[in-house]
Amino acid sequence: MKELEFSFELITQDEKARVGKITTPRGEVDTPAFMPVGTLGTVKGIYIEDLISTGSQIILGNTYHLMIRPGTETLDLFGGLHNYMNWQKPILTDSGGFQIMSLAKLNKIDINIGAVFSSHLDGKKFVLSPEKSIQIQKSINSDILMVLDECPKLTHEKEKLISAIDISTSWAKRCKIEFGKNKNKALFGIVQGGLDKDLRLNSLERLTKIDFDGYAMGGLAVGETQEQMFNILNDIVDYMPKKKPRYLMGVGTPSDILGAVKNGIDMFDCVMPTRSGRTGLAFTWEGKLNLRNAKYQSDKTPLDIRNSLRSLNMYSKSYLNHLIKTNEILASMLISLHNINFYQQFMSEIRKEIKKGNFNNFYNKYINKF
Amino acid sequence: MKELEFSFELITQDEKARVGKITTPRGEVDTPAFMPVGTLGTVKGIYIEDLISTGSQIILGNTYHLMIRPGTETLDLFGGLHNYMNWQKPILTDSGGFQIMSLAKLNKIDINIGAVFSSHLDGKKFVLSPEKSIQIQKSINSDILMVLDECPKLTHEKEKLISAIDISTSWAKRCKIEFGKNKNKALFGIVQGGLDKDLRLNSLERLTKIDFDGYAMGGLAVGETQEQMFNILNDIVDYMPKKKPRYLMGVGTPSDILGAVKNGIDMFDCVMPTRSGRTGLAFTWEGKLNLRNAKYQSDKTPLDIRNSLRSLNMYSKSYLNHLIKTNEILASMLISLHNINFYQQFMSEIRKEIKKGNFNNFYNKYINKF
Repeated sequence: MKELEFSFELITQDEKARVGKITTPRGEVDTPAFMPVGTLGTVKGIYIEDLISTGSQIILGNTYHLMIRPGTETLDLFGGLHNYMNWQKPILTDSGGFQIMSLAKLNKIDINIGAVFSSHLDGKKFVLSPEKSIQIQKSINSDILMVLDECPKLTHEKEKLISAIDISTSWAKRCKIEFGKNKNKALFGIVQGGLDKDLRLNSLERLTKIDFDGYAMGGLAVGETQEQMFNILNDIVDYMPKKKPRYLMGVGTPSDILGAVKNGIDMFDCVMPTRSGRTGLAFTWEGKLNLRNAKYQSDKTPLDIRNSLRSLNMYSKSYLNHLIKTNEILASMLISLHNINFYQQFMSEIRKEIKKGNFNNFYNKYINKF
Repeated sequence: MKELEFSFELITQDEKARVGKITTPRGEVDTPAFMPVGTLGTVKGIYIEDLISTGSQIILGNTYHLMIRPGTETLDLFGGLHNYMNWQKPILTDSGGFQIMSLAKLNKIDINIGAVFSSHLDGKKFVLSPEKSIQIQKSINSDILMVLDECPKLTHEKEKLISAIDISTSWAKRCKIEFGKNKNKALFGIVQGGLDKDLRLNSLERLTKIDFDGYAMGGLAVGETQEQMFNILNDIVDYMPKKKPRYLMGVGTPSDILGAVKNGIDMFDCVMPTRSGRTGLAFTWEGKLNLRNAKYQSDKTPLDIRNSLRSLNMYSKSYLNHLIKTNEILASMLISLHNINFYQQFMSEIRKEIKKGNFNNFYNKYINKF
């Protein structure tokens, strides 16, 4: 039997919205797909078995965090992150670039060297070159690797955006070389260019010439309005290769996802369902509920009566409100799991509605509720 | 079919060590039994289904904490704590006395009124009388209630110990009256008297005259040495009613439990397995492991290869070390669950060894390891 290689199949389309399937040696991923974030080798507060029960087919690992802790030496000892954390399905890793710009104390960006920065933990100096980023992602044994890019903060300064594209394109080439040939894995390019259509198209064109297995939209969900984000997706997506998966990095709320799917995006990741779970915010089909609110103190109803996962529906909002107010770990556990489960239900409904050619009705029904 | 009533059956004895069975309408409890502590309506970091899988048959709720949050109004709305937290097996509640002395700002103890104190959370004034303590425990719908007692700090001042016995005996009577007649539930008396044999016997005698469904040893594990604790148990236990369960409150380490079982104790509760779980301490048959220790960083072996619960044995010590160091919730979840599971395995082995008449060998094998 021939071992499965990485591939993407576009199954059907409803206007721009697409249903597809990513195949990897570690399993399939139905798209549009939501990837829970497992920053440090755990999707916070969720057992692996439960994560699988939510229907999650792929998770994201953060290269920046994992290079600091546990570090590549430990990851190499286990042959990568899958064995280390006991998640045997696909993993996508970012390049570390975004966290260097947002978390670390960045010393400088040098097109030839890479990003020079100090760890946010202990100030230890690191240099992350394009080659190094790919090497670390290989230590993680990631199934989908991302190129190292420079992600400028939200800006309209064209010069900064152009310079970021130049640096990112140059690094993308070096990442491709370092990645080499590996039919089991994928390397995605990242389109930059802020909210400027021409710059985005320029970045996209230069990346497609290098030829990647998928293309991500970077530098979005960084402070622009949702409308601005949808507009730039609408501007660009028709120019993106049809037969490659399209990934909108770090997005987002259910309504962000709805609008991005409408604009042809296939993949998403976001810390929102787990981070919100730890602060008592629950995502439901009725909208977002702040379970910390005193009005839930005597509410005997569950978050979602149809939730068959792990008997989550046996817990009342009153009990969840109590657990949140008393800072009990179980609050984070229950609400994070509920939220991830909701996100995966939501993606599953999106795929069904696209297949039925009914996505626009679904979009109209929910875009304002979320 | 007649509904089951609360009862205790002494099944077998190996010298002083006993195997028995408590029966309640909500289920049976094999003794010697360990009761995980669910202070605020959750055994910290553990799903109910997993708690059941560990073989836990009864848990402890803290009256002091539950009266403050969520309060009796909410508990009444749900018909008690079982429905509120979705634990349908037996619950034992303490009286609130111990926490008032240790946590709250105690204003005064008045034999006629009760304990007057301010909440450790917001300074709100409360009065806990013997009657009020029983009423709250009834709101919790506890299966085994404890009398309100005065628990003096570790002391050799005879006067203080005598005064505490007088107050506790008087309150015990009032608790018995407030408890009334209820064949489905049990009310336990609490023996005080510090490390003084005569005072302990005096307290015990006065309590047995009132007649309770079980008897607890209070005021131990409060700073005395393990040897002192074992000695006072050895002094007293032969005078305790044979046909009633004997409960050593707030104890303890595996070796504390071993020694107390050897001295005829049937029931235990302690926060240790979950509290240690949150700081990275694991209890195993090889002794206690501090998983925070750097030596585990590259240790690919699991905590316990025989641990079939929830695939706990698929996690390496290296991974647990990483989760602890990065303050991940999953560390608390995995190690707390492991520890409760170990404690229940340990109790199960103790019961087996007593039944085989082999308890002393088991005791000798493990007393120094733990």
